[in-house]
Amino acid sequence: MKIAIVMGSVSDMPVMQEAIDILKEFGIETEVDIVSAHRTPEKLFDFSKNAHNRGIAVIIAGAGGAAHLPGMVASMSPLPVIGVPVKSSNSIDGWDSILSILQMPGGVPVATVALNGAKNAGILAAQIIGSSDKSVLDKIIAYKESLREGVIKASEGLKK
Amino acid sequence: MKIAIVMGSVSDMPVMQEAIDILKEFGIETEVDIVSAHRTPEKLFDFSKNAHNRGIAVIIAGAGGAAHLPGMVASMSPLPVIGVPVKSSNSIDGWDSILSILQMPGGVPVATVALNGAKNAGILAAQIIGSSDKSVLDKIIAYKESLREGVIKASEGLKK
Amino acid sequence: MKIAIVMGSVSDMPVMQEAIDILKEFGIETEVDIVSAHRTPEKLFDFSKNAHNRGIAVIIAGAGGAAHLPGMVASMSPLPVIGVPVKSSNSIDGWDSILSILQMPGGVPVATVALNGAKNAGILAAQIIGSSDKSVLDKIIAYKESLREGVIKASEGLKK
Amino acid sequence: MKIAIVMGSVSDMPVMQEAIDILKEFGIETEVDIVSAHRTPEKLFDFSKNAHNRGIAVIIAGAGGAAHLPGMVASMSPLPVIGVPVKSSNSIDGWDSILSILQMPGGVPVATVALNGAKNAGILAAQIIGSSDKSVLDKIIAYKESLREGVIKASEGLKK
Amino acid sequence: MKIAIVMGSVSDMPVMQEAIDILKEFGIETEVDIVSAHRTPEKLFDFSKNAHNRGIAVIIAGAGGAAHLPGMVASMSPLPVIGVPVKSSNSIDGWDSILSILQMPGGVPVATVALNGAKNAGILAAQIIGSSDKSVLDKIIAYKESLREGVIKASEGLKK
Amino acid sequence: MKIAIVMGSVSDMPVMQEAIDILKEFGIETEVDIVSAHRTPEKLFDFSKNAHNRGIAVIIAGAGGAAHLPGMVASMSPLPVIGVPVKSSNSIDGWDSILSILQMPGGVPVATVALNGAKNAGILAAQIIGSSDKSVLDKIIAYKESLREGVIKASEGLKK
Amino acid sequence: MKIAIVMGSVSDMPVMQEAIDILKEFGIETEVDIVSAHRTPEKLFDFSKNAHNRGIAVIIAGAGGAAHLPGMVASMSPLPVIGVPVKSSNSIDGWDSILSILQMPGGVPVATVALNGAKNAGILAAQIIGSSDKSVLDKIIAYKESLREGVIKASEGLKK
Amino acid sequence: MKIAIVMGSVSDMPVMQEAIDILKEFGIETEVDIVSAHRTPEKLFDFSKNAHNRGIAVIIAGAGGAAHLPGMVASMSPLPVIGVPVKSSNSIDGWDSILSILQMPGGVPVATVALNGAKNAGILAAQIIGSSDKSVLDKIIAYKESLREGVIKASEGLKK
Repeated sequence: MKIAIVMGSVSDMPVMQEAIDILKEFGIETEVDIVSAHRTPEKLFDFSKNAHNRGIAVIIAGAGGAAHLPGMVASMSPLPVIGVPVKSSNSIDGWDSILSILQMPGGVPVATVALNGAKNAGILAAQIIGSSDKSVLDKIIAYKESLREGVIKASEGLKK
Repeated sequence: MKIAIVMGSVSDMPVMQEAIDILKEFGIETEVDIVSAHRTPEKLFDFSKNAHNRGIAVIIAGAGGAAHLPGMVASMSPLPVIGVPVKSSNSIDGWDSILSILQMPGGVPVATVALNGAKNAGILAAQIIGSSDKSVLDKIIAYKESLREGVIKASEGLKK
Repeated sequence: MKIAIVMGSVSDMPVMQEAIDILKEFGIETEVDIVSAHRTPEKLFDFSKNAHNRGIAVIIAGAGGAAHLPGMVASMSPLPVIGVPVKSSNSIDGWDSILSILQMPGGVPVATVALNGAKNAGILAAQIIGSSDKSVLDKIIAYKESLREGVIKASEGLKK
Repeated sequence: MKIAIVMGSVSDMPVMQEAIDILKEFGIETEVDIVSAHRTPEKLFDFSKNAHNRGIAVIIAGAGGAAHLPGMVASMSPLPVIGVPVKSSNSIDGWDSILSILQMPGGVPVATVALNGAKNAGILAAQIIGSSDKSVLDKIIAYKESLREGVIKASEGLKK
Repeated sequence: MKIAIVMGSVSDMPVMQEAIDILKEFGIETEVDIVSAHRTPEKLFDFSKNAHNRGIAVIIAGAGGAAHLPGMVASMSPLPVIGVPVKSSNSIDGWDSILSILQMPGGVPVATVALNGAKNAGILAAQIIGSSDKSVLDKIIAYKESLREGVIKASEGLKK
Repeated sequence: MKIAIVMGSVSDMPVMQEAIDILKEFGIETEVDIVSAHRTPEKLFDFSKNAHNRGIAVIIAGAGGAAHLPGMVASMSPLPVIGVPVKSSNSIDGWDSILSILQMPGGVPVATVALNGAKNAGILAAQIIGSSDKSVLDKIIAYKESLREGVIKASEGLKK
Repeated sequence: MKIAIVMGSVSDMPVMQEAIDILKEFGIETEVDIVSAHRTPEKLFDFSKNAHNRGIAVIIAGAGGAAHLPGMVASMSPLPVIGVPVKSSNSIDGWDSILSILQMPGGVPVATVALNGAKNAGILAAQIIGSSDKSVLDKIIAYKESLREGVIKASEGLKK
Repeated sequence: MKIAIVMGSVSDMPVMQEAIDILKEFGIETEVDIVSAHRTPEKLFDFSKNAHNRGIAVIIAGAGGAAHLPGMVASMSPLPVIGVPVKSSNSIDGWDSILSILQMPGGVPVATVALNGAKNAGILAAQIIGSSDKSVLDKIIAYKESLREGVIKASEGLKK
């Protein structure tokens, strides 16, 4: 079981790296590629139509501006697609990225996360696998515990 | 395997019904309840902490205005949580519902769908189950084919 | 020479009809079809890749919400693509439609018109043909004169 | 009588410090802690349910992005809760912070101040105490007089 | 101890009535008046400067559009001022009302509640009194319990 | 005949200086002061009620955030009041400044100029005087001619 | 001395009528016409270039959507130009009308009033005349007194 | 056949240069000038009325803030006009530039591209010429192929 992480441009990589990193932490295999909806539509088709036949379980797609990649992947793949709105240089404060990923029509959902929220996209992908795989679910539970401990530590630091 | 569908108020029911209906179409069992983050915080805790121990695989949570339900469920459950921003009567054109569900901090994702997009929440929940269950994946593929046929038919109707 | 008018859903027809009507007024041939980026991606590909080989000179594409149709057509066709943001029922006051059509990345333009501005899309298509066809240019000039006369008449009506 | 100041993350401290400072100026005791709605929900519960039994009179809660802390504290405490929307790094120009704190449903108010307005949160907390404590009210009156004098001085400086 | 409820125009009354009603429910005395910042500035001065000397403990001020009433009252009264942004007919979807009440400069807070959130303004005023008056605090606790019971009942109704 | 230029804080001076400078260019006398609606309400009253009796013809008022100064001056002075929305540090991209100055209720206009548009406020004040003073009108005409010449020069520079 | 009131379309008349009515109340002469920046540019030129030579003292211009009329009149007339953003049917909640009138570049001001604020445009025009005409100034003072009386009456009505 | 590129201010040149560069790449002749709608209205008239008689096929117009240049050119020229919203220093995050170019009334279209999207304006102009000129169409096809190759290369780079 693998998570595919695709993005519209190599310039999205600094944001999307966080998804790769957190999935590594969870011990989940990833494959990463550049797939541009607007510049490589054939690759978009090939990728989207076949991902579920290649052992991919979840697709994470990041894009900025008029961000069509997540929605177009979702139109052709039966897999859950997680969209990451990227605040790219050509974006209007991120609103265009968010709205063109989030506001999908009935029938073709994209699971949208926060602006530049690639880390959360990775966690969500892990949770999706965890929903049918007890060992991954336990890792999520442990991860949440580590978040809690981080805050408790910060709280103690503050009081000193 | 079951999908839990919770909402902050009984007034969200007309929107959330679409999630129930589409999941029924996919033959996936659901349980439905009112859980208000702001008026029943203890119930929120009980529900969120225990859902994964009761055979729930995915949680769909809908709320409007300062919509804290999806994020608070996500803070306490290791399951994937799908958030439905509801354009309730006290919402500012839906912007408050969207932003308070979408913009979750790193560590605690909510899979956000379009404003009032409960139908897509249901489909996404089915896709999440389908990512590890071939029979559900096949239903998704068939569903997408039915969407295609609907458009082809509409196109033919137009040409007459 | 023909103008192709495509839209994502039959529910966009009341808005898009204005493009058909004004092009008829200019005596320019049109073909009209439903092409959904999200529900009929193969048809989208066929249409976009071949339009310029079938005597189409300009493509008008209308869609609402996360409106990917105009941009995806533009990604695959070398023709000028005019995008009409439709304020559909699932749109947030039209902002999603506008931003997901307008904010195309460098390399793949969409000529965007006003929200629900299908009439202007038709006029723009005629102007594009008129830029190399004197007889159509003259019709545009006459059309503008008729606009002027309409205002003059309204002004006179006011003064009575 | 004490004011509790809580925030979702230690990174909110530079903003929230202004509340601590101004309350010190008014001679009002404070306690400060990190309480994350999303990472320490149990602490959130303990804190919110018990604050009024520990001599706390007012709670100031600051958070950014999908800022659920103030509203969730308000759902469990009978005390007045003042919310400070923080323009954190993951916030969209502060709109998400503002709307997810301000737009609380009927029954569960949060007294929202301006974006990053922790100083005003502190003053408001003092005014709340002052509404039943003449000595604090007099300090507020003196504070307002000092604001006036600051402007008069600036005006005189300008004229020189 | 009394709560003063003022509004910029008699047309704000249907919204502001909810504050009056909920305070009645809590058994807290109110006085209600029209005070327009823009049309009766002298009355605004008299009211704001003297309220705390007349036994008023908290002021609730509602206004729409460029809503200056809450902020101007706050500039002249040492009491806590709760602002209710009203979505009046001349308001742009309520954004102007919200921003001109919420975004007060450092030194002069207004405790802002949700758009049209007069009911919450009333509850917040009661909470402010409750912060120093045990009998009112107990009423708030009972009120919150009634909210909880309402949801539990709705939940049970749903399951039948 | 004099133009009064007031601003809510000395920090608005860098923006407002442009109004002073352009009026100097037009040879129109100005007086400049800090008048804070929120910190010096009495001064606001004195200034606004008496300006027209002191030979002031037009008032320019600049403020940021919840910018109440221009509207409150307009509520008490019969003179034309020009409002300059200042993008101050506590402003949300200037939207709060603009809306709280622009959206005045019927009966009390403020002549609003662009965000940080103090130069245009100065020109507008001169135009107001010019509407009844031929010599100032001629200066406006000459000023417009100088704008034209600036563009012509820039155009010629471009062509070299 | 006359006020010219122009609008981009006869459909703006219901909004703009309020400017005509209030100026009639002040006994100030008006002339009213339709001048469309986009459909009658020559008329726009003639009108703007000559208004100040025909005894016009102030120009009120109303338009909606991409509202270029007020700014283009201001580019060619030395007179003060008051812009009324009209929330026309093709406008996006009025934001386009407001921004395309308000955000004029340095050198060419438009005195912008609230969305649909034609009444205030009329009052502002009267105030501009009043700034050099004592008899009109006195009418403004009386008008403000009548506003005050209206509120006092409403306040008394409320108390009964 | 030539493309005219005009802009409202020499400060728009860094953005607009991209249109010039890409058209040079396509071997299409351009002429470039400063035409300010607000500072040189006569030049605007001359330019707009005569462009189609001087062998211009398409006009690209860029402007920021209350950007009236593209729409005013479109009101007087029968040619297709492409508008480039420029995020100039006096613009509110580009929203004013976008809305005052995009939201043209029925009858007078402007083909709007993304914020600062001058490169896309150039490509669109080439596509317009290409719609009737096979040799230019072939260049567009080749250009799109080069975009594809760029992504494929970036994808290969990523995998190493």
